[in-house]
Amino acid sequence: MSANQPNERASAAAAEVLPAAPGVVRILGVDPGLRITGFGVIDQCGQQLAYVASGCIRSKDKESLPQRLGTLYAGLRELAAKYQPQQAAVEIVFVNVNSQSTLLLGQARGAGIVALVAAGVDVAEYTALQVKQAVVGNGHADKVQVQHMVRRLLDLPGDPSPDAADALACAIAHAHGGQGLGALSTKGRRVRNGRLL
Amino acid sequence: MSANQPNERASAAAAEVLPAAPGVVRILGVDPGLRITGFGVIDQCGQQLAYVASGCIRSKDKESLPQRLGTLYAGLRELAAKYQPQQAAVEIVFVNVNSQSTLLLGQARGAGIVALVAAGVDVAEYTALQVKQAVVGNGHADKVQVQHMVRRLLDLPGDPSPDAADALACAIAHAHGGQGLGALSTKGRRVRNGRLL
Repeated sequence: MSANQPNERASAAAAEVLPAAPGVVRILGVDPGLRITGFGVIDQCGQQLAYVASGCIRSKDKESLPQRLGTLYAGLRELAAKYQPQQAAVEIVFVNVNSQSTLLLGQARGAGIVALVAAGVDVAEYTALQVKQAVVGNGHADKVQVQHMVRRLLDLPGDPSPDAADALACAIAHAHGGQGLGALSTKGRRVRNGRLL
Repeated sequence: MSANQPNERASAAAAEVLPAAPGVVRILGVDPGLRITGFGVIDQCGQQLAYVASGCIRSKDKESLPQRLGTLYAGLRELAAKYQPQQAAVEIVFVNVNSQSTLLLGQARGAGIVALVAAGVDVAEYTALQVKQAVVGNGHADKVQVQHMVRRLLDLPGDPSPDAADALACAIAHAHGGQGLGALSTKGRRVRNGRLL
């Protein structure tokens, strides 16, 4: 047997469990990448959204591909065990720098998605356009606008890190369920061109 | 919780366990794909190779990507539980038809590799060139030559299916450990241009 057994690491970490309150839908947003996988956990209660946690899972460049994918898999299993999300939202990133980088990204997405499926979490996918449209109200918004709106919508004290912001934005897009920005609670604020007024 | 829980399916299937005999190295070869993932299991005892099993895992076109990746993951977990391979060999396939198909293939590879890592199996990767060089003695051999040599090297009664042949070839390449075709037992046969004489 290999020393690399993410399942066992996941069950060890499962000792710390922080589930959502009854009646609350917990959503895990994931922005997968081989080097850095951003994640963000939010709670949805009716039209209200609340920030729970965010961060990223990093793999080491010097490790083999199976080891790196194993780290990503184990990290997401740990998050699923700890936060017990019912639903997950993964961004459909589309880089086409070259076929090698597309293949690497695909491998990271595949490892991330099955980690969630194996943990019994329903996985939905959203394009960057859908995410930006849902969060900023403009499918061509830039990263800074996304960070800004994620901060406002979740009432964060500061901008989330760029890695976590995309994952949180994806979770928000899922919570919002494609019904347009108006369906989200913005606590009485008005939105124009992706900015809260 | 989702109805899609591959882990539970894998543990149910683990009831039927067919491990290798002591002193035998069992190798699982995998040729991953989103629609069809070929697999082949062989036993290595010294320089002798023996066929154990082969086949393929199929996913349904109409299912969502997470469901299809979940099927692939569950299938490989089942195989790992049933045959208990110590090592796995996965082919580094490199299609570049378009970036979308490369992304899909990458996702299937990622899901397949982490299924094996999560099951505690050591995963090695081989390019198609390395596999063909190891099995046929010619890195540019065609599929028919690979099938033919896999049949001969494993003493099969007929050619394996094309899907399984690539996976078995990958397992053979791993068994052979990059030491050249001469390191494999070919039961007294001589090899020239990828054909047994």
